[in-house]
Amino acid sequence: MAQNRINNDKRSEEARPMPANAAKPPRPSTARVPLSRVRLDGMWGLYQRLAREATIPYQRDILNDAVPGAVASYALRNFRAAAGMVEARHGGCPWQDSDVAKWLEAVAYALESQPDAALESDADGVIDLIEKAQQPDGYVDTYYILHPEWERFTNLLEHHELYCMGHLTEAAVAYYRATGKRKLLDVARRCANMLCARFGEGGGKTEGCPGHEEIELALIKLSDVTGEERYLRLAKYFLDARGTSPNCFALEEKRRGRSDAEVQREGRYAYYQAHMPVRDQTAAVGHAVRAAYLYTGMAMAALRTGDEPLMAACRRLWSDIVGRQLYVTGAIGQSSHGEAFTFGYDLPNDTVYGETCAAIGLVFFARAMLDSEARSEYADVMETALYNAIPAGMSLDGKRYFYVNPLEVWPEASEKNQGRQHALPERPGWYGCACCPPNVARLYASLGEYAYGQKDGTLFVHLYSAGMARITVPGGEAAIRVDTAYPWDGAARIVVTETSGVAWTLALRLPGWCADPAVSVNGATIQTDSAENGYLYINRLWKLGDTVELDFPMPTRLVRANPLVRADAGKAAILRGPVVFCLEEADNGANLSALTIHADASAITAEPDDSLMPGSVRIKASGFRDTADTDTLYMDKSDIRREPISLTYIPYSFWANRGKGEMQVWTRLA
Amino acid sequence: MAQNRINNDKRSEEARPMPANAAKPPRPSTARVPLSRVRLDGMWGLYQRLAREATIPYQRDILNDAVPGAVASYALRNFRAAAGMVEARHGGCPWQDSDVAKWLEAVAYALESQPDAALESDADGVIDLIEKAQQPDGYVDTYYILHPEWERFTNLLEHHELYCMGHLTEAAVAYYRATGKRKLLDVARRCANMLCARFGEGGGKTEGCPGHEEIELALIKLSDVTGEERYLRLAKYFLDARGTSPNCFALEEKRRGRSDAEVQREGRYAYYQAHMPVRDQTAAVGHAVRAAYLYTGMAMAALRTGDEPLMAACRRLWSDIVGRQLYVTGAIGQSSHGEAFTFGYDLPNDTVYGETCAAIGLVFFARAMLDSEARSEYADVMETALYNAIPAGMSLDGKRYFYVNPLEVWPEASEKNQGRQHALPERPGWYGCACCPPNVARLYASLGEYAYGQKDGTLFVHLYSAGMARITVPGGEAAIRVDTAYPWDGAARIVVTETSGVAWTLALRLPGWCADPAVSVNGATIQTDSAENGYLYINRLWKLGDTVELDFPMPTRLVRANPLVRADAGKAAILRGPVVFCLEEADNGANLSALTIHADASAITAEPDDSLMPGSVRIKASGFRDTADTDTLYMDKSDIRREPISLTYIPYSFWANRGKGEMQVWTRLA
Repeated sequence: MAQNRINNDKRSEEARPMPANAAKPPRPSTARVPLSRVRLDGMWGLYQRLAREATIPYQRDILNDAVPGAVASYALRNFRAAAGMVEARHGGCPWQDSDVAKWLEAVAYALESQPDAALESDADGVIDLIEKAQQPDGYVDTYYILHPEWERFTNLLEHHELYCMGHLTEAAVAYYRATGKRKLLDVARRCANMLCARFGEGGGKTEGCPGHEEIELALIKLSDVTGEERYLRLAKYFLDARGTSPNCFALEEKRRGRSDAEVQREGRYAYYQAHMPVRDQTAAVGHAVRAAYLYTGMAMAALRTGDEPLMAACRRLWSDIVGRQLYVTGAIGQSSHGEAFTFGYDLPNDTVYGETCAAIGLVFFARAMLDSEARSEYADVMETALYNAIPAGMSLDGKRYFYVNPLEVWPEASEKNQGRQHALPERPGWYGCACCPPNVARLYASLGEYAYGQKDGTLFVHLYSAGMARITVPGGEAAIRVDTAYPWDGAARIVVTETSGVAWTLALRLPGWCADPAVSVNGATIQTDSAENGYLYINRLWKLGDTVELDFPMPTRLVRANPLVRADAGKAAILRGPVVFCLEEADNGANLSALTIHADASAITAEPDDSLMPGSVRIKASGFRDTADTDTLYMDKSDIRREPISLTYIPYSFWANRGKGEMQVWTRLA
Repeated sequence: MAQNRINNDKRSEEARPMPANAAKPPRPSTARVPLSRVRLDGMWGLYQRLAREATIPYQRDILNDAVPGAVASYALRNFRAAAGMVEARHGGCPWQDSDVAKWLEAVAYALESQPDAALESDADGVIDLIEKAQQPDGYVDTYYILHPEWERFTNLLEHHELYCMGHLTEAAVAYYRATGKRKLLDVARRCANMLCARFGEGGGKTEGCPGHEEIELALIKLSDVTGEERYLRLAKYFLDARGTSPNCFALEEKRRGRSDAEVQREGRYAYYQAHMPVRDQTAAVGHAVRAAYLYTGMAMAALRTGDEPLMAACRRLWSDIVGRQLYVTGAIGQSSHGEAFTFGYDLPNDTVYGETCAAIGLVFFARAMLDSEARSEYADVMETALYNAIPAGMSLDGKRYFYVNPLEVWPEASEKNQGRQHALPERPGWYGCACCPPNVARLYASLGEYAYGQKDGTLFVHLYSAGMARITVPGGEAAIRVDTAYPWDGAARIVVTETSGVAWTLALRLPGWCADPAVSVNGATIQTDSAENGYLYINRLWKLGDTVELDFPMPTRLVRANPLVRADAGKAAILRGPVVFCLEEADNGANLSALTIHADASAITAEPDDSLMPGSVRIKASGFRDTADTDTLYMDKSDIRREPISLTYIPYSFWANRGKGEMQVWTRLA
C-alpha cells in the first residue's frame, strides 16, 4: 500500500517520457498537493474567503447555540454532556455530531491554506471536548453516549453512528495534515481500532455496514495518513458486506422486530444502495449523497487494493450517472422523495432535488476516479459541479444557502404546488440548519486538492484558476503561477516560478467543452492531439520563467440534451466554457416558459458584466415572447402573438441574488 | 320554493316567444327529465350498459365481501352489525357507508331507465338493512354506531358522518324517484330531521359544517323531492357556517385538544374550502372532489333561494376553474398532494392528479350552473369531461378503473420516480377499491339528466347523443328521436316523434368547439346567430315527423394552451369535436417527447377506426422524430437527427387499453 499513501510528497520520483501513443491506458494521478502549497485567486479565491470569513465563524456560533433566533444546534452541548461537563439530554438529530466534524474539517483546510492562531485555538478547544467525550473503548457518538440504555450498533440502518465517526475521522486526518497535531487523529484511531475489533466476519464480530455511507472513505483516508492497513481492510469489509444475501440490514431489522414481509419488500434497501452487492451494481440508485459517498469509498478502495472488479463497478456507476442521470449543471438526485436518484434520462428541471451536498459528493467521486485514472472526463464533471451546481447552493455574500438546486423555478409553484415546494425561489437564512453550509465550506476550503494533483514528479492541472501551486519534483521543488480570468476567459498563462535541474512533467487537462484547444511553450506550439485521455503531458527541463500559453476558445454554445431526456425536448441551454447560464425574471420579465431562443448561435453574444461578480460575463441572445390575445385557457394558433425580444442570461450559479423571481436553464428553441 | 321543485313536470307551462335579442340574460334550465323518459344509444349507451352489467353487479358482490381475492369492503357487514344482526367491529374506512349509498344510487338510476325486478329486490334488501341500522333518533352512520363510546359529530373535520348521510340521502331521492318506494326516503328524512334539530345557530344547537362537503347538495335534493323547505335551510346553514370567523373547525379542533398555533397555521382549512366564507371565495382551492361538491351545493342553493351573492361566488369559482385550472380533457385537481387544486395556469401533464371523481364533481357543478342559467359554456365543460377525463377513468370493458388521469405518462417514471407514482400506466383491477367505480356508474346511469333539461315547456338539448327524450309540453306530451354518430360525426337529425297541438320550444345547444354550426327545420335554415348564450330556441307548433338537421362541422383542431400554461408551452393538442386525442406508444413507438407535430393543420386527417370502439375515429398527422447520433447526455445540434414520421392519435379516453406504454396529449409543434 505504501505507494499510495497520501503523505508521501517526498518519496523518490522519476521523470516520465513524453507519451507517444494517445491510446495508452490512463495514468493514475494519485497524490494530493498539500493546501499549503496551493493558492487560488479569482472566483474560487473569493469562495475560499467566504468560507473562511463567513461560514466558519458563523457555524462555530451555531454549534455553540450562540446565534440569537437560530434553531438550536445542541451539537457542542451534546459533546459537553457526553464528556460529563454538563447535565443535558441529547439535542438535535441523531447525526448532530457530524456538524461539529465537518466544521472542524473545514477549519483544518482553512488553516492548512492560511494559518490563523485564533481559529486554531477555537478548534483545539473543540477537539479537547471531543477527546473528553470519547469513551474508554474508543466509542464516540453523543447520541448513544447520552442514551446509555440503548445498545450501540443495533440500528446501523437508520441511525448514524458510523456516519458520524466517519466525519470525525475525516476531520482528524485533515487537522493532522494541517497542524501536525495528533490529538484528534488519536481520537479517530482509537475509534477506528474499536471498529476494527467490533466489525467483520467471524470471531464473534458484528456483521453489518452503515445505513449512511461515509465511514468507508474516511477509514481509507485514515489508513493513508497513518499507514495502518487494517483501516483500509475494515473499509473494504464494509463495502463488501453491503447488499449481500442474506442482507445484513434485513437481519438487523428482524432483530428489531420487523416482519419478513416488511424487510423483503422489493427495493427496500435500494435507498441505501444495499439492494445488491456493490460490485454488481450498474445503476446509481437511492439517496444521492449516500450513493456518492459510497462510490467514492469504492473507488478509493479499488485503487489502493488493485481490486479491478470493484473499479469496474465504479466505472459503470460513473457512466450511469454521467451518461444518464447528470444535470447539465452537475447536479444529481432527481427526486425530492428520498433526495434520490430515479433512473436514466429522467431529469425534470422543476421537481429535481439536486442537493448541494450530492453535487459535492459527486466531486468526491470524480476526484477519487481521477486518482485512479487521469481521464479528463472526471475533471470535466468536477469542474461543471464546482462552477454551477455547488456555488448555486450559496448566495454571493456567503450567508444564505440552498439545499435544493432546481434548473427551473416558478415562485408561485414553489409556494402553492406541494410537489414543488422543496424547490425554493430564495435561499433560506442559512442559520436555520447546520448540515450543508459546512459541506460547502470544507469543499471550497480544500479546492486546491481538486485543482491539482501530483504523481511521480508530474504536476497535474485538473482545474484552471488564477493562483499558484508548488510540488516536489525530481531534483527539488517546482512551482507555477497561473494567470487567467478563467472561467470567464479561456486564455491562461502558466509561468514556471521555481524548478529543479531535472526534467519534470506538467500534465494539463484539455477541457472536454473545448473543441479547439491551443497550447504553446515559450511560443512553440504543442500538438494537443498528443494528449492522453484528455491530458497533455509536457515533460521537459523546465527553466525559471518558462511560459505555457493555453488558449481554450470559449464560444457561447447552445447545448441540446439527448432526445431521451423528456424534460429538455425542443430546448437548449446556454453554456460558455464550463459555465452554465440561465434566464432570470429580473432580466427577462415573468413567464420564462413563454420565451424562445433563436436557434442560430451566431445571434448570441457574451458581454462583460461586473454587476454580480467582478470580471464575469452575461449573454445576450435574440428570441421571442409568446403572449395570448385572449384570456381563455385554450385557443387557436391565431390567438397567440409572437414578438421578437432580446434575452439576457446570467451565470446559473448567480441566480436568486436579486430577489424572488423565476429562473430557467433550458429554454425552448424558436 | 315551489317553482323550483324538481318533480313538477306537470305544472302549467306556457310557450315562449322566439328570442329577438341574443344579449338577453340567460334563461334557467331547471327541471330534470326523468330517466324513464330518456334513452341514450351510441357510446354513452354502451357506458350505461357497462354500468348496469359490469359495475353494479360486481360492486354488489364487493359490498358483500363476496369477491374472492378482493380487499374486504365490510360495508354491508357494518350495516348488519349496526342493525344488531351480527356481532362485528366496524371494518374499512370511516366513510365506508358511502360505498353502499353510491351503489344504491347507481341502481336507482339504472332501474329508472330500465326496470329490473331482480336488481330492485337486491336493492330493497340493502334498504331494509339500512333501515334496521338506523337509530331511533334518525342517526345512521355505522362508524359511530359501532363505536358507541365515541361522541357523535365531534370530529366533523376529519370524520365523514355528514358525508355518508349525504350520499344516503342522494340514494334515497334517486330510489324514490325510480321506484316510488318510500322506505329509504323515510330513512333519509328521519336522518335529515335529526340533523335539522341538531345543527344550526343558537338554541343549544351544534354549530359546524362538514369536513367533506356532500350533505348540502343532498339536502337540497331531499328538499326538492319532499317539498320540505327546512332541508334547504339546513343546507344553506352548512354553506354559510363554512369558513366564517371564528372558524368552526378551529373551535372543534381546540375542543379536541389541538393548540392555538396548530389550528391557526395559515391555509390550514383551505384543503376543506373553509379558509374564508364561501361567498367570498374567488379561487378553487383544496381537495378537488370536496370543492366540486361544495360548489354544486352552493349553486343549487343559490338557485332555489335567489341568493345572488352566492350565485356570484359560484360564477367566480367557475371562471377560476374553467379559465385557469381546467385541463383540456376536463380533468381538475393538479396535485397528488391532497388530491387538490393548486393555482391558475399550473397544469402539469405528468404529475397531475385529475381524479375521476373530481371530474364527475365538475359535471355536477356544471349541471347545477346550467340549471340556473342556460349558458352553453357549462354544457361545453360537461361534455368535455364526459367524453374525455371521466371515461378515461374506466377501461373499455368496464372492469378496470383509474383514479388518476394524467395527460402524459412515462411508465418507467410511474415506477421509479416517486413524484409520479400516482400516475399509473395501467388501470388497476377495480375490485381493489370501492369508491370510484360506483361514482362512474351513478354518473353514466343518470346521463340522461345531463343530456336533457326542461323548463316551462322548453326541451333543452344540452348534450348530443343518439337516442330519444320525452317531456310534457303545453297541451300534452312531446318526444324526439336523435339520430347521430356523435361524437365521431357532427351531423345530427332530430325527428319529432310525438307532439301536442300547442307550440313548444326546442332549445339546442350550439357547441362552443364548433365555429360554424348550421341548423335547419324541415330543410329551412335557422339563423344560428339568433342563439342566446349558446342556445338556439326554436319555438313552433311542431308536427309529427318534423325534422331538425344539425350540422356541427368537426375539423380536426390543433389546439394551443394559453402561453401562461408553462407545461404546454410550444405544444399542441389535437381535438375533434368534443373529443381530445392522444399519442400512445402502441402506435408511435417509445419516447413520445421526441416527437413533434407539423404545425400545419391541413396535414391532419381523421379516419374511421373500429379497433377500440365501433364507429370511432383516429387521427393521422405528419411530424418528426428526434434521435441522437451519440449516447451522451448533452450535445450539439449537429448530433440530433430529425426524421419525418406519421403520427397516429387515438381518442384520449381509450388510452391504456392495449397494454402498458407511454401516452401524451400535448405534443411539441415542429
